[in-house]
Amino acid sequence: MGKIVTFGEIMLRLEPEGYFRFLQAATYGATYGGGEANVAVSLANFGLDAAFVTKLPKHEIGQAGINKLREFGVDVSKIVRGGNRVGIYFLEKGASQRASKVIYDRAGSAIAAAEPGDFDWNAIFEGTEWFHFTGITPALGDTVAAICMDACKAAKARGITVSCDLNYRKNLWTREKAGTVMAGLMEYVDVCIANEEDAADVFGIHAGGSDVTSGKISHEGYAEVARQLAERFGFKQVAITLRESLSANDNNWAGMLYDGKDCFFSKKYAVHIVDRVGGGDSFGAGLIYGSLRKMAPQDCIEFAVAASCLKHSIEGDFNMVSAEEVLKLAGGDASGRVQR
Amino acid sequence: MGKIVTFGEIMLRLEPEGYFRFLQAATYGATYGGGEANVAVSLANFGLDAAFVTKLPKHEIGQAGINKLREFGVDVSKIVRGGNRVGIYFLEKGASQRASKVIYDRAGSAIAAAEPGDFDWNAIFEGTEWFHFTGITPALGDTVAAICMDACKAAKARGITVSCDLNYRKNLWTREKAGTVMAGLMEYVDVCIANEEDAADVFGIHAGGSDVTSGKISHEGYAEVARQLAERFGFKQVAITLRESLSANDNNWAGMLYDGKDCFFSKKYAVHIVDRVGGGDSFGAGLIYGSLRKMAPQDCIEFAVAASCLKHSIEGDFNMVSAEEVLKLAGGDASGRVQR
Amino acid sequence: MGKIVTFGEIMLRLEPEGYFRFLQAATYGATYGGGEANVAVSLANFGLDAAFVTKLPKHEIGQAGINKLREFGVDVSKIVRGGNRVGIYFLEKGASQRASKVIYDRAGSAIAAAEPGDFDWNAIFEGTEWFHFTGITPALGDTVAAICMDACKAAKARGITVSCDLNYRKNLWTREKAGTVMAGLMEYVDVCIANEEDAADVFGIHAGGSDVTSGKISHEGYAEVARQLAERFGFKQVAITLRESLSANDNNWAGMLYDGKDCFFSKKYAVHIVDRVGGGDSFGAGLIYGSLRKMAPQDCIEFAVAASCLKHSIEGDFNMVSAEEVLKLAGGDASGRVQR
Amino acid sequence: MGKIVTFGEIMLRLEPEGYFRFLQAATYGATYGGGEANVAVSLANFGLDAAFVTKLPKHEIGQAGINKLREFGVDVSKIVRGGNRVGIYFLEKGASQRASKVIYDRAGSAIAAAEPGDFDWNAIFEGTEWFHFTGITPALGDTVAAICMDACKAAKARGITVSCDLNYRKNLWTREKAGTVMAGLMEYVDVCIANEEDAADVFGIHAGGSDVTSGKISHEGYAEVARQLAERFGFKQVAITLRESLSANDNNWAGMLYDGKDCFFSKKYAVHIVDRVGGGDSFGAGLIYGSLRKMAPQDCIEFAVAASCLKHSIEGDFNMVSAEEVLKLAGGDASGRVQR
Amino acid sequence: MGKIVTFGEIMLRLEPEGYFRFLQAATYGATYGGGEANVAVSLANFGLDAAFVTKLPKHEIGQAGINKLREFGVDVSKIVRGGNRVGIYFLEKGASQRASKVIYDRAGSAIAAAEPGDFDWNAIFEGTEWFHFTGITPALGDTVAAICMDACKAAKARGITVSCDLNYRKNLWTREKAGTVMAGLMEYVDVCIANEEDAADVFGIHAGGSDVTSGKISHEGYAEVARQLAERFGFKQVAITLRESLSANDNNWAGMLYDGKDCFFSKKYAVHIVDRVGGGDSFGAGLIYGSLRKMAPQDCIEFAVAASCLKHSIEGDFNMVSAEEVLKLAGGDASGRVQR
Amino acid sequence: MGKIVTFGEIMLRLEPEGYFRFLQAATYGATYGGGEANVAVSLANFGLDAAFVTKLPKHEIGQAGINKLREFGVDVSKIVRGGNRVGIYFLEKGASQRASKVIYDRAGSAIAAAEPGDFDWNAIFEGTEWFHFTGITPALGDTVAAICMDACKAAKARGITVSCDLNYRKNLWTREKAGTVMAGLMEYVDVCIANEEDAADVFGIHAGGSDVTSGKISHEGYAEVARQLAERFGFKQVAITLRESLSANDNNWAGMLYDGKDCFFSKKYAVHIVDRVGGGDSFGAGLIYGSLRKMAPQDCIEFAVAASCLKHSIEGDFNMVSAEEVLKLAGGDASGRVQR
Repeated sequence: MGKIVTFGEIMLRLEPEGYFRFLQAATYGATYGGGEANVAVSLANFGLDAAFVTKLPKHEIGQAGINKLREFGVDVSKIVRGGNRVGIYFLEKGASQRASKVIYDRAGSAIAAAEPGDFDWNAIFEGTEWFHFTGITPALGDTVAAICMDACKAAKARGITVSCDLNYRKNLWTREKAGTVMAGLMEYVDVCIANEEDAADVFGIHAGGSDVTSGKISHEGYAEVARQLAERFGFKQVAITLRESLSANDNNWAGMLYDGKDCFFSKKYAVHIVDRVGGGDSFGAGLIYGSLRKMAPQDCIEFAVAASCLKHSIEGDFNMVSAEEVLKLAGGDASGRVQR
Repeated sequence: MGKIVTFGEIMLRLEPEGYFRFLQAATYGATYGGGEANVAVSLANFGLDAAFVTKLPKHEIGQAGINKLREFGVDVSKIVRGGNRVGIYFLEKGASQRASKVIYDRAGSAIAAAEPGDFDWNAIFEGTEWFHFTGITPALGDTVAAICMDACKAAKARGITVSCDLNYRKNLWTREKAGTVMAGLMEYVDVCIANEEDAADVFGIHAGGSDVTSGKISHEGYAEVARQLAERFGFKQVAITLRESLSANDNNWAGMLYDGKDCFFSKKYAVHIVDRVGGGDSFGAGLIYGSLRKMAPQDCIEFAVAASCLKHSIEGDFNMVSAEEVLKLAGGDASGRVQR
Repeated sequence: MGKIVTFGEIMLRLEPEGYFRFLQAATYGATYGGGEANVAVSLANFGLDAAFVTKLPKHEIGQAGINKLREFGVDVSKIVRGGNRVGIYFLEKGASQRASKVIYDRAGSAIAAAEPGDFDWNAIFEGTEWFHFTGITPALGDTVAAICMDACKAAKARGITVSCDLNYRKNLWTREKAGTVMAGLMEYVDVCIANEEDAADVFGIHAGGSDVTSGKISHEGYAEVARQLAERFGFKQVAITLRESLSANDNNWAGMLYDGKDCFFSKKYAVHIVDRVGGGDSFGAGLIYGSLRKMAPQDCIEFAVAASCLKHSIEGDFNMVSAEEVLKLAGGDASGRVQR
Repeated sequence: MGKIVTFGEIMLRLEPEGYFRFLQAATYGATYGGGEANVAVSLANFGLDAAFVTKLPKHEIGQAGINKLREFGVDVSKIVRGGNRVGIYFLEKGASQRASKVIYDRAGSAIAAAEPGDFDWNAIFEGTEWFHFTGITPALGDTVAAICMDACKAAKARGITVSCDLNYRKNLWTREKAGTVMAGLMEYVDVCIANEEDAADVFGIHAGGSDVTSGKISHEGYAEVARQLAERFGFKQVAITLRESLSANDNNWAGMLYDGKDCFFSKKYAVHIVDRVGGGDSFGAGLIYGSLRKMAPQDCIEFAVAASCLKHSIEGDFNMVSAEEVLKLAGGDASGRVQR
Repeated sequence: MGKIVTFGEIMLRLEPEGYFRFLQAATYGATYGGGEANVAVSLANFGLDAAFVTKLPKHEIGQAGINKLREFGVDVSKIVRGGNRVGIYFLEKGASQRASKVIYDRAGSAIAAAEPGDFDWNAIFEGTEWFHFTGITPALGDTVAAICMDACKAAKARGITVSCDLNYRKNLWTREKAGTVMAGLMEYVDVCIANEEDAADVFGIHAGGSDVTSGKISHEGYAEVARQLAERFGFKQVAITLRESLSANDNNWAGMLYDGKDCFFSKKYAVHIVDRVGGGDSFGAGLIYGSLRKMAPQDCIEFAVAASCLKHSIEGDFNMVSAEEVLKLAGGDASGRVQR
Repeated sequence: MGKIVTFGEIMLRLEPEGYFRFLQAATYGATYGGGEANVAVSLANFGLDAAFVTKLPKHEIGQAGINKLREFGVDVSKIVRGGNRVGIYFLEKGASQRASKVIYDRAGSAIAAAEPGDFDWNAIFEGTEWFHFTGITPALGDTVAAICMDACKAAKARGITVSCDLNYRKNLWTREKAGTVMAGLMEYVDVCIANEEDAADVFGIHAGGSDVTSGKISHEGYAEVARQLAERFGFKQVAITLRESLSANDNNWAGMLYDGKDCFFSKKYAVHIVDRVGGGDSFGAGLIYGSLRKMAPQDCIEFAVAASCLKHSIEGDFNMVSAEEVLKLAGGDASGRVQR
C-alpha cells in the first residue's frame, strides 16, 4: 500500500490539569495536535505509512512537535524547518453543562508564514497513494491556501486520491471567504468529510430537521446534504459525523457515508467523554483506512465511527488505538470488560 | 451599584487527589473556601464589587487565604489580622454510591475566637448595598453570633439589604440552639436562602411529600415551606435549592424563588458532578446578583440555578464563572459543545 | 473471633495516570494487589484479624509490598522472604467503549518459585478460623498448586472453614488444566465464590439465558449453576457475583448466595466505576465477614454486594471501606450525599 | 509614602518540571513574569503600594496574568485590556555546566501592539512617587518606545523619581538601536540599574579587569562604569549587580551603589540557585525600597543585594519575600537554620 | 532484646512541593512526624521492636497517622483513640540563604488534651527495655507533663533505661518553665540527648567558644556542657549533636558522646541537605540502637551520627535507613557511588 | 557518513519521584534505557544516523520502548518483536552520603531469551560504518554472548569499526566468566571504552595509585591500564572515564584517550549531579562521534568528556544534548549563564 500524506499545522496544545478552568491552572499539560497531524498519527497507529508535512521552527518547541510525531511512527522527513513560532492552542476541558473552551494563539506560526517555495510537492508525493488536508489549512492565510492548491494540483496530476475534511473554523475566516476558497479546492477532492455543521457553514447546505445544539439529528437531512455536496463538487464519497451533544460529558456519536449512490449509516454510540478534541480527525483517518483496505461502505463507516468513538476515551488530540481494537468494537464488543 | 459585604469564616480546604480516600492520600490539594467567602468570590467573578470580612492570623497560612480572595478581585481590606489558626476542613470526594466526606478541624480559628471590638461595622459598611451571611457563622460560637447580630443591626440601620443562607451544620450546634439563635437574627433578614433540609433542621418547617435521601422532591411542599418561612420572619424573598441526590456523581439540581406572592420554579438540570461543595453558595450569589440587577423573579431563579449548576462542574469551593457564561446556560445552551 | 488467613501472590501494580494509555504513560502509579491479599486487607479494614501468606524477595520492592499490607493492619509475620522478583501487572484504565487492559509480568516471581518447605501450615494456622485462596494461586504452577493442597489439607485437619474464589485466568492455564487441578482442591472447600463466568470456564457449568458481553444476566441460570456446583463438590455455600458490563464506566452489580437450600439475590447497584479491579475480591471478603458475623443469608449477600459496590468507587486493588460504611449502604442510603 | 508605578510586559512563563529539558517536557509549570511586573510584585511583598501598567487581552490567558498580580496585592486597575495575545517565554532550567535556556515567543503581544492612546499617564501617575521601567519595554517596538517616552516625560513633569534597569536583550534589538533609543530615555532617568554586562552592551562602557563568563569581577572596573554612566546621563544613582557565574547551580552575587560621589559595595553571597530568573528585578525592587525608606547608601545596597540573594532561592519570576526577611539576611543571619 | 517505647505527639506534616514558599503552594505533601514517633520508626527500620504511645482521634486523619507508623512496623497497639484533632505543622523548605520555616498548628490536639487516666503505663511497659521521650512532650501542657512524669516513674520502677532528648521549643513554653519542668523529669533520665543549643536554652549551660548562627563549634565547650549536665542530673550518658549551618542546603554534622568519663567525638560529615527535619531524632535513635547493641562509645557515636547524616538525605520526618546502611557509612564509604 | 548500529537490551526504568526512597514511592517515573540504547539516542541527538538492535515483546510495554527510541530519531526498523517481557530496573536516586541504588529485574527479558536466528546481521549491517556494544550484553546469557560474537564477526567481515564498553556488572556474571567471554569478543574490537574499575574487574588490569571509593585517581596508573589493554587485545584506541565520587551529589569527571601511542587527558569537571546513570554511555557516544568526525585525539576526548559532563545534568538514561551544546562546553563556557 502506498504512503498517505497529510498537510497542515501542528500546534502546541496547553491544557489545565483535569477539570481546572484556565484561571485555576498552575500547570499545563503539553501535547501537540492539529487536524492533519492527528490523521497522520491515527493512520500510523493503524500500521500504515503516513507522512505529515508542515513547517516548524528550528528551536526545541518546534523539535518537540516533530519528536511527538516521530514517536508514533509518522514520517517527518518532509517537514520544513524555519519560521519563528509554533502555533498554540489553550484547551479547557468542560464538564456537565460547562462547555470545553479553546483559545487559539496561532497567528504568525511558521506554517502560517510559509512560502510556496518551501514545499516541493513532487518530491513529497513520491510513492504516495492518498493526500489529505482540512479546511483549517487554507484558512491560515492566502499563501497557505495557495500552497494547498499547489498540493492538490500535484496530487491530482499523479493520480493520488485527495480527501478533505471541511472543518470550518469561524475565528480563522468568514463563511463567505471560506466558501470561495474551499470551492476552488474542492475541484481536486475525491472524498469529502464533514461534521454536522460544516456543510452549512462553508457552502450553505443545510440539513433539514436537525438542531445540533439541542442534539437532534435527522438521518434524511444529512443524506440530502451529502447528495448535494457530491453533486455540486463531484465527490466520489461524502462522509459526515453525526454528534448529538447531550452535555460536555455525554455525547451520542455516529456517522454516515455516501458513496455517490447510497447512504450508509453507522451504529450510534453513547459516548462518555474523556477528550473529544480530534474526534472528527480520527473519523477521517478511519475512513481513509477503510478505503485503502477496500472495505465495503457499511464496514468502512462502521470502522470510521468505531475508531472515533474510541478516540473520545483517549486524552490528547491523537487517537492511540490499533486497527485491531477498532475492529473489535466495530464487531460489536462495547462492554468495556477488562482485557487480561 | 453598591458594594456587597459578606462575613464569615474562610477555611483551608485540604483534599486528597482525585478519588483517593483520606487513608490513601500522600498529598492534599490546598485551596480556601467557606460559605460567605464563596459568595464574595462568585459575585466578584460576576463583575460586582464584593468584600469579605473575617479574622485571619498574621502568618502565611492566613495570608494565603487573603491572597486567594484577592486573586479573584475580592476586597480584603476589611479583614482583621490576628488570632492563632486558620480553620481547616478535610474533604474526601465521593463517587457512585460512596458519599463525599468532610472532617472539620475548625475549633479555635481566628474568627471563632474573634471579639466584637475587632469589627467596626460602620466603617465596613461604607458604600455597601447588600450584606450576606450564613447560618454557619453564628454557629461558630456565642461571641461570633453576637458579632453577627451587631452586623445585622448596623446593616439594617443603614438600609442595607440583608440575606442569610440558613446552612445548618449539625456538628457545630444542635437544632435547638440553632433555632433560637437564628430566629433572633432573622428579624434583620430580607432574603432567606435555604437548601431542601435547612428549614426543617433549624425551624422545624418540613416540606411534605419529599424525601431527600431517596431523591424525591415535591414542588408544592417547598412552596409551602417558603410561605411559612416568609410568614414567620417577614422575609421579602425566600429561595430554596432543590437537590435530588441520585449518587455521588449524579444529582438533579433546581431551585425555587418565592417573592412573597408567587413561587417561581427553575428548570431542572441533570448534573454530572465534578465538585458539589459550594453549590449552595453559588446559588446564593446568583440570587444576589439577579436581585441587584433587578431581574424578574423567573429570570432571577433561572440565573441562580444556572450559576450553581455550573459550579458543580468546577473544582474547589469557588464558582469560577462569569455572568455571561451563566446567562448563556440560563438561556438554554446546555449542550456542552466546544467553544472555540 | 479467630484469625482469617489468605494465601497467594501480591503483585506490584503499575498504572498510567488517569485515563492515559500505556503508550502515553510517563509515570506509573505504584500500588500492590492480588486476589488473596485484597481479601486480607478488606477484612482488616472491617476490623478483623487477617493474615496474608506469600513469599517475597528481601529487596525493597518486596519490602514495599509488605509495608503496604502492614499499613492497613494485615498480619505479615508469616510471609516468607526470598526469591528474586515481585510479580508485576500493568493496568490501563478503560473508559466508555474502551476496555481496561492488563499486561501481566509475573513469571518467575518469588511465590511462583516457592517450595512446599517454605510454609509451615501448622504454625501458620495457629488460632485460625477461616482460610481463603483463589484459583489464581494454583494456576501459578504445579508446585504452588501442591502448596495449596498442603494448606487445604492442614486447614481441614484443624476444622478451619475453607473458601475459594474460582477466579479463572486464561493466560495462566488452560480450562482443562484448571478443571483438573481445581476439582482436586474443591474437595476441601466449604464456600465457593465465583463470578458470572468462572463456573463455565473452570468446570464447564453454564448459566442458561445469560450473555456476559451483552450484559444480560438470568437469575434462574445462576441459581442452577450454584446448585450444580454445590452438588458436584459438596460446598456448603456458593456465592456468585453478577456483573452487567454496560461500558468501561458503567456496570450493574449484584450477587447471589446459595446456602445449599435457597438462593438469595441481592439488590442491584448501578455503579459508576472509579476502579473495578478487586471488585470480586471485595465481594469475597464481604461474604467471609458476613459469615463470621453470622449474618442471615440475605443480609450476608447484601453486605458482600454493598462492600464490593463501594470497592468500584475506590482507586487500587484494596477495598478501603469500614464495616460501618458497608452497612450504611446495604441499609439503603445510596444517595451519595456529603457526610459532614 | 506614594505609589510606585512600573510599566512593561508581563508574559506567561512556561517551564518544564524540575530539570527536564524542553524535549522531555510533558507538562509546563505556568506562571507569569516580566521585568517590571516582577519589580511591582516585589515591592508589594515589601508592603508598598505598587501598580503595574501594561496591556493584556480580554481572554482568560490575559486575565490569569492580572489575577496573579492581584494575588500579591499589586494594583492592576490601570492595566488596559485588549489586543490578541499574551507574550510567552519558555524556560528550561539549567544545572551544573548546562545553562538555563529561554525561548521567547512574545512577538505580537498585546503590549507590543499597544498604541500611545491606550495609556493616560496623567491619570496613571495620580499619587505616584516613583516610576520604574526597564530596557526591555522600549525594545518591544518603536511604538512602545514612544509610549515609554510619554511616560518618562509625564513622570518628570510631576516630579516623580524615575528608575530604569538597562536590561539589554539581544534578541529584541541590536546594540546600536538600543544605544540610540535608551540614550534618549536616559535624559529622564534618576536612578540607573544595570547588570555586569548592560552598560557595555547598550552604551559601550566596559568594566576593565572583568570577564563575566569566567566569573571574574573587578570592583574598580565597575566603579568606573558607574561613574561614566552618571557623568554621561546625569544619573543621581547608579546601581550594578555583580554576578559571578560558577555554574548553573552556583553563583556569587553582590552589588554596588554609586551615589554620585562614592561607591558602596555589598557583601558577596555564595548562592545555591533554585531559580535565578528575576534576580536583577528583585535587586531593582530592593533598591527602590531602600531609597523610599531613606536608607543610607550602604544599607540600601545591602538590602537590595540581600533581597535578590533570597530571590535566587525562590521558584518563579516573583520575589516572594517580606522586608523583614530581607533585613534579617542583610543583618547577617545567612545560616539557613529552621525558623520555628 | 526488649521493646523500646517512645511517647509523644505525632503530627500531620504539610509541606509545599519542592522549594515553593507557603504563598505559592497549591498542594501540600502530607506525611506524619514528631520527635518520639520519628525515633520509633527509625528503630523499627533498624529491625528493633519499637512501640509508639500517643492519643489520636478516631477519624481518618488520626487513623492515617497510625497507618503510617504501622507501615514501617511500629507497634501501635498502645495508642489511645479519642480527642478532636491531630496536631499539624506546616513546613516550608528553605534553600541557600533562605531558612526553612515551620508554622505549628498543634494546640488542642488529642494528645495535648489527654488525661493521665488514658495511659496504663504498667501495661504499656510490659516487656520494655528502653523508654524515650523528648522535651516537646511535657511542653504540650501541664497535664501532658504530668503524664510524662507518670511514665518516667513507672519506667524507673521497672528498671527500664530512660532517655530524653531535651529538644527545646520556644513557641511552646518559656526557658524558665522548661527549666523547671525538665529538671523534675531529669531525675529519672539515664541518657540525655541534646543539640548544640538545648542545654543553654533549658538549663542555662552554655558551650564556650561556639556560635551556632555563624557555624562555629568548639569541641571543648561541648565536652564541658556534657560534663555539667551529667553532674547536675546524674546522667549516665550525654550525647550532643553538633551542627554547623553553612546555609539551608549545606551543613556540617557531627556528634559527641560523654560516657561519664570521656568524650567521644564522631567524624564530621559535610551534608548536602534534602530534608533536615528529624535529624536530631534520627541521632537519638542511632544512639539508642548503639546502646542496646552494646557498641563501644566511639562506635556508638559514629553509628548515631552516620544514621542522622543519612537522614538529611531523606524526605520526611522518618529516617528510612537500615542498620546495614548506617554501618556501611560509619565504616567509611561516603562516596555515594551507585549500588547495583 | 555511514550508520552506527548498537546492540543490547533496553529496559523499563522505574524511579521514585525526586529523592524518595523505594519504600516511600507512590509513583514511578517510567522511562527507558540501557547501555547501547543510550549510545544510539546520544548519537541521534548529535545528528547522526543511529540504529538500535534488540528484541522486544509485541505488547505495549515493549512498544513503548520502541516509541521512546523513535521519538529521538533512532532507527528501530531492525528491532525484533517477540518474547515475553521487557527487562526492568528500579532506580533510587541518592543524595549526599546516601548512594543511588539499582534493583534489577531483567531475568527472562525478550533479548535475554533471544535466539541467534532472530538477527540477520548481514541485513542489519547494510550501510553501517560503526558497531557498538557493551559488556552487559554478553553477560545476559550464553546465547546472547553467542549472538554478540556473530555480530562482531559479521561487522569485522564488512570492515565495520567495532567499539565495546567493558561495563562490568557483578550481578550478571562473575569476574572469571566475564574475563573469558569478553576476551573472546575483544579480538574483534577496535575501540575499547572502560570506566575506572572495568579493566580490573574484567581483565585484572589494575591502575596503580588510585582508590575509587576515596575518589583518588592517578593519571599515570590509567595510562598504564590503557597501554596494557591495547597490548593484550590490539585495540586501536582505549578510552577511560575517570570519575571521582565525592558524594552522591558531587563528582569530578574527566577522561583519557590512548591512541596506541599517546595518552590524552581531558579537562576535569566538577559536576553537580542531576542524574549520573548513563554517564559512561554518553562518554562512549561522544567518543564515537569524535572519531567519526575525525577529531584530533585531544579534541575527541574533550568532546566525549564534555558530552558526558552534560549528561550528568539531565534526567533519564538518555543524553539529551546536541553536538553544538557539547562543543560550546568543550570550548570552554562552563559558566551556566542563561541562554536567551
